[in-house]
Amino acid sequence: MSSELEQKRHEFFKKLMSHNLTTYFITFHPTEAPKFGLVKRPIFTNEPTPLAIPYKWEYPTLRKLLYELSELLRPEEAERRQVQLVNPGLKELPYVGVIAIAPTIFAAIQLVKSGEVAPSHYHTPNAFRLILEAPPDGAYTIVNGRRIIMHRGDVVLTPSWSWHDHRNEGESDVIWLDGLDAPLIWYMGGIFYKNYAEVYKMDKQPITHTQDDILATYGSGLKPEKDDIGVYNPLLYYPYSKAKEGLSRLSEKESKADEAEGTVLRYINPLNGEDAFPTMALKIRLLKPKSETFAIRKTEHIVFVGIEGNGIIEVGNEKFNMKPNDIVIVPPWHKYRIVNNEEKPLILFSYSDEPLFKKVGIYREELTK
Amino acid sequence: MSSELEQKRHEFFKKLMSHNLTTYFITFHPTEAPKFGLVKRPIFTNEPTPLAIPYKWEYPTLRKLLYELSELLRPEEAERRQVQLVNPGLKELPYVGVIAIAPTIFAAIQLVKSGEVAPSHYHTPNAFRLILEAPPDGAYTIVNGRRIIMHRGDVVLTPSWSWHDHRNEGESDVIWLDGLDAPLIWYMGGIFYKNYAEVYKMDKQPITHTQDDILATYGSGLKPEKDDIGVYNPLLYYPYSKAKEGLSRLSEKESKADEAEGTVLRYINPLNGEDAFPTMALKIRLLKPKSETFAIRKTEHIVFVGIEGNGIIEVGNEKFNMKPNDIVIVPPWHKYRIVNNEEKPLILFSYSDEPLFKKVGIYREELTK
Amino acid sequence: MSSELEQKRHEFFKKLMSHNLTTYFITFHPTEAPKFGLVKRPIFTNEPTPLAIPYKWEYPTLRKLLYELSELLRPEEAERRQVQLVNPGLKELPYVGVIAIAPTIFAAIQLVKSGEVAPSHYHTPNAFRLILEAPPDGAYTIVNGRRIIMHRGDVVLTPSWSWHDHRNEGESDVIWLDGLDAPLIWYMGGIFYKNYAEVYKMDKQPITHTQDDILATYGSGLKPEKDDIGVYNPLLYYPYSKAKEGLSRLSEKESKADEAEGTVLRYINPLNGEDAFPTMALKIRLLKPKSETFAIRKTEHIVFVGIEGNGIIEVGNEKFNMKPNDIVIVPPWHKYRIVNNEEKPLILFSYSDEPLFKKVGIYREELTK
Amino acid sequence: MSSELEQKRHEFFKKLMSHNLTTYFITFHPTEAPKFGLVKRPIFTNEPTPLAIPYKWEYPTLRKLLYELSELLRPEEAERRQVQLVNPGLKELPYVGVIAIAPTIFAAIQLVKSGEVAPSHYHTPNAFRLILEAPPDGAYTIVNGRRIIMHRGDVVLTPSWSWHDHRNEGESDVIWLDGLDAPLIWYMGGIFYKNYAEVYKMDKQPITHTQDDILATYGSGLKPEKDDIGVYNPLLYYPYSKAKEGLSRLSEKESKADEAEGTVLRYINPLNGEDAFPTMALKIRLLKPKSETFAIRKTEHIVFVGIEGNGIIEVGNEKFNMKPNDIVIVPPWHKYRIVNNEEKPLILFSYSDEPLFKKVGIYREELTK
Ligand SMILES: [Fe+2]
Ligand SMILES: [Fe+2]
Ligand SMILES: [Fe+2]
Ligand SMILES: [Fe+2]
Ligand SMILES: [Fe+2]
Ligand SMILES: [Fe+2]
Ligand SMILES: [Fe+2]
Ligand SMILES: [Fe+2]
Repeated sequence: MSSELEQKRHEFFKKLMSHNLTTYFITFHPTEAPKFGLVKRPIFTNEPTPLAIPYKWEYPTLRKLLYELSELLRPEEAERRQVQLVNPGLKELPYVGVIAIAPTIFAAIQLVKSGEVAPSHYHTPNAFRLILEAPPDGAYTIVNGRRIIMHRGDVVLTPSWSWHDHRNEGESDVIWLDGLDAPLIWYMGGIFYKNYAEVYKMDKQPITHTQDDILATYGSGLKPEKDDIGVYNPLLYYPYSKAKEGLSRLSEKESKADEAEGTVLRYINPLNGEDAFPTMALKIRLLKPKSETFAIRKTEHIVFVGIEGNGIIEVGNEKFNMKPNDIVIVPPWHKYRIVNNEEKPLILFSYSDEPLFKKVGIYREELTK
Repeated sequence: MSSELEQKRHEFFKKLMSHNLTTYFITFHPTEAPKFGLVKRPIFTNEPTPLAIPYKWEYPTLRKLLYELSELLRPEEAERRQVQLVNPGLKELPYVGVIAIAPTIFAAIQLVKSGEVAPSHYHTPNAFRLILEAPPDGAYTIVNGRRIIMHRGDVVLTPSWSWHDHRNEGESDVIWLDGLDAPLIWYMGGIFYKNYAEVYKMDKQPITHTQDDILATYGSGLKPEKDDIGVYNPLLYYPYSKAKEGLSRLSEKESKADEAEGTVLRYINPLNGEDAFPTMALKIRLLKPKSETFAIRKTEHIVFVGIEGNGIIEVGNEKFNMKPNDIVIVPPWHKYRIVNNEEKPLILFSYSDEPLFKKVGIYREELTK
Repeated sequence: MSSELEQKRHEFFKKLMSHNLTTYFITFHPTEAPKFGLVKRPIFTNEPTPLAIPYKWEYPTLRKLLYELSELLRPEEAERRQVQLVNPGLKELPYVGVIAIAPTIFAAIQLVKSGEVAPSHYHTPNAFRLILEAPPDGAYTIVNGRRIIMHRGDVVLTPSWSWHDHRNEGESDVIWLDGLDAPLIWYMGGIFYKNYAEVYKMDKQPITHTQDDILATYGSGLKPEKDDIGVYNPLLYYPYSKAKEGLSRLSEKESKADEAEGTVLRYINPLNGEDAFPTMALKIRLLKPKSETFAIRKTEHIVFVGIEGNGIIEVGNEKFNMKPNDIVIVPPWHKYRIVNNEEKPLILFSYSDEPLFKKVGIYREELTK
Repeated sequence: MSSELEQKRHEFFKKLMSHNLTTYFITFHPTEAPKFGLVKRPIFTNEPTPLAIPYKWEYPTLRKLLYELSELLRPEEAERRQVQLVNPGLKELPYVGVIAIAPTIFAAIQLVKSGEVAPSHYHTPNAFRLILEAPPDGAYTIVNGRRIIMHRGDVVLTPSWSWHDHRNEGESDVIWLDGLDAPLIWYMGGIFYKNYAEVYKMDKQPITHTQDDILATYGSGLKPEKDDIGVYNPLLYYPYSKAKEGLSRLSEKESKADEAEGTVLRYINPLNGEDAFPTMALKIRLLKPKSETFAIRKTEHIVFVGIEGNGIIEVGNEKFNMKPNDIVIVPPWHKYRIVNNEEKPLILFSYSDEPLFKKVGIYREELTK
């Protein structure tokens, strides 16, 4: 190309930009756009090239930093005293780059010490917590008046728009993983947020029900004809005892069925059989001793959390050793394999943006033996 | 009308019939059709005038006759040793008139004595049993290899096409109510039926799972990613202990919400949140001491069964006293009210063809204080 | 069996019946029940044995009788002046046996002469008409104020609960086929029916829209954000010109795809993509010259109507020659094949209770080359 | 707070970040986070504060720049020769900040001169074009072999994964608006893209059908029983002639119904009655002469395009005059009102990410008189 034409083009592209305009040639074009440097990496690629990268956080480090933070920050000040996992690949993005493990999902480790309270608020992002450490009793999340106890491995939901606070009346500290779809909701421009105190002049909401009220209805194949719980998933509580029993019983029966991905249970909304949240798929899986999955790639961001046993998650050329509570992120279309070399079962929890990919119509997966 | 024209018309209508034809005038017409006597009662009426009538069967009589039958019929001969409830209003219909409590639903009381077996078969009609009397252990229904224990108040499903048999290895007899959609399926011309022995040369199927395998997965808000249970409701078992706990907890909280119909729980398929069966709605309700429902009419045939307490079902001018295990049928658009005059809660189970009315698009209801 | 036991059983069964009870042994049991004569034919059979039989009505006869009827019955008297097709196999059933071509569906031929009106009414049964003969203009059905013109081959819906009347302001008579789900709705006990005159003191409803208003919105991939048409299929009109053009264009493209059943178009509700009615599937199909379908059996009652060309419908050992407007009923699980031996395309319209079988969960089909 | 504690906190937060971690206190906290400057604007706000701002582009400027571009860039080089609208509020975001009118949607103006071709490719982002200028005949989009003509006001879809190219065999140039969900799909990490030439060694795909084949089936309330069109919306073509007729007819009938937003038609997928795309709602509306809408705010990004007449879109304190082909973006929860002061109807096309908000479960709207 003559440098004169090239010069003219450059001048024209500047003019375009001054009108809040660009063009395909300098942004999307697979071979031409890179020359202009407007985008660091191509947008239209043959296969997904997500910004997020595979990465691992080890629990001992997370826990140590969380306690260090607790020396520096009182819970009343903090509103939520936690440590957020930030995907190194997202750092070039403002906002998301300082809060998100994936463009669509959030992960943090939160501490509520014995005697502490995290005050009540609501927000449009959906949230759940996976309990990592808890006292035998006394640690609760309260969701729209429902008081739900928290034990290791339990999953507790605080859906979009629901008032929620956390209280530790137990004798030891409680630590959990917070999973949210907040980066997606923020990106969409859909954040509504409010402190309970702003409306009701107090930090804690009144308690009207317990987890046993919920389990005795929505957790048993039943549905009240009249209820005030609203439109969201009413089964706010998935105790680990049930999930583990389900995994154990299923893995004893299954043979070929669980070869590809291990024995997998999906947490569902009993009112429609769909995922626990409209935006996030929560699952728990068991790999038998001395077993491994197929090589898998899917169009979803998956966060894995170790629950029991030690294993390995291979992503491309990297191998992440997974001990209990370690956390790994696998980005879309990255091939991964889970390996259990031990003599004991490996149990992993995971959450992902699979429902979003499915609703948008672009979910794909490949499972190779 | 001239009697000459009248005569011509009659001759013409005979001619029509000889060609396998009739006409609106002599069949549907609100004022004219009755004159011809082709249909005993009008077809097109301002409001539903179902053939089925309100009726009650008392359990002591049913039970006595069931035991008399058991003296005359061995279970191997009988295939299913039971006593079927026939709605007096349907007697003018062949087939349905000797088997059905409603045109779309079936009800019977079945007995399997200690040590007996009811052999395995499948059929397209959906079926469930509500257990009325059972030994502390040893009474089972087996559904596609799933062995499900039966205790008083439990609901056990044997969905369309599933192999099922019943075994009583307990020390006392088991008696249950059988609920089916068989009259509808038969009317549609959709009966498929087979004896297990025809295919496998034996009466009993092998057992691969128990009710605890089911409850630990489908009964806990979870869904196996891979399973061989097919397309039907996989939660084959609804223990009464759970239903009763749900009713108790709900009725303590609810105040205004349960005024119209009592505290009501609907049995649902956890894979879609819809009714336990595509054709039948199963529910259980509690009326608090000294309470009554609104006056209700709905386009559905409802069968009520007493579970705990004594109450009254008023239908039109009739009052049916309901003791435990008594059975009442309420036809469509008949106004009814349930009354509990006692000091103890009244618990009633019910099943109806509501889902059919809803799927067909003609469901209506009125609840009047 | 000792004749003493036999005697006792007979006495006991009589006693049961006096209590409005029967038992499986004398009603359902595949080998025992027939001995008792309570049901003429077995209820539980390995495969469907519907009461309805395959049958054909020829249009010239139907038309001749319809005109004879018109000499004897004025339209004001008749409300609907038509000739109903009655399946000979259903005659043993009261009510249904004098009105129905199948237990779930109704078929009739209706005549509105030039200048006549069929007065307005509503009913819960869904209805449509397939126009067989019509003047070039002036023949209308009015549905909830929508005036819809009728030409040969057009399909016009009058859904459940909608006010509808018919007017012939054209210069020649109009004749159509009426298709309804009335036998099902009646069997369910769900008939609501009303004359417009009872409410509004006149026979004809006011006209607010025409078919062009409908086609310009619901017939073009669009949906008004606000509309008063209610919950039913708003696309009340399916002109034959469109259906025929669709068939012609599709049949030119398709090769292997249409081998099994011919080129088939299904009439759908544009608000959900499902069948035109919740209870009835309406279809139109084209068999190319010198072609035939596979041997087919399905769990549905199908009514076929000849539209263009001459063909043969083989059902079991019977062969029904199909000329335009001839009508054939094929019951569930009867094997049939459609044959076009002519040099011109064969076009058949059909309607069936397929959606009911699918909703109830027992639809099956087999297509054999 | 003591400056010593403050100092320690700052050091600790740096340490956190070195471990790819942050905390709520410095990112989300409504009052504390702003002090740290990690995020320019709060993330958790009482109401949505989207990055995108209201903005308008005038067609004459867009068109002039597009023609200037065409002097500098041949279509073969360009792949797509177009001018993309970039929301000034998004500029702080990399990638999205140089391509997107909203975080989830894309808008551009494309030119294909007489005789030119835009070569075939596919991608996961869904796309449509709204035609702004076209020759009387000869301008086509080809989608998976379906050749679709383009006239002013027509909407043509090229859904996710479908091969598509554009050809202008007409005597004058064609210009259209391209609408895509590409920013969302890119953000999710879900881009798959391919040039047809890479696979088939040519730029143009073979033509197997025309728009009339499509309209004669999917555009008429019919559905082929067998078809090869895949899972996406098969009604790829919505001619303006139909939309305009629909608007005219509806606006004549409606009175109160269209007061709030004007007479609005939504483009739907006839196979499910849902929006034309899973991610984007396409609508067209008419405001009668001398009329205005309510004040409206919704959680969605809306792009308005002038079609006929002149009007005003007020957003907050800004007033955007809308002439034909002018383009305005309204971000979530911004109050807007549309005003038609003229003697002629105002017709506006719009597309938005409403379906995404609804699927995610956070859609809200307020309409105030
Ligand atoms: Fe929160
Ligand atoms: Fe727990
Ligand atoms: Fe059975
Ligand atoms: Fe039990
Ligand atoms: Fe009618
Ligand atoms: Fe027509
Ligand atoms: Fe494209
Ligand atoms: Fe056009």
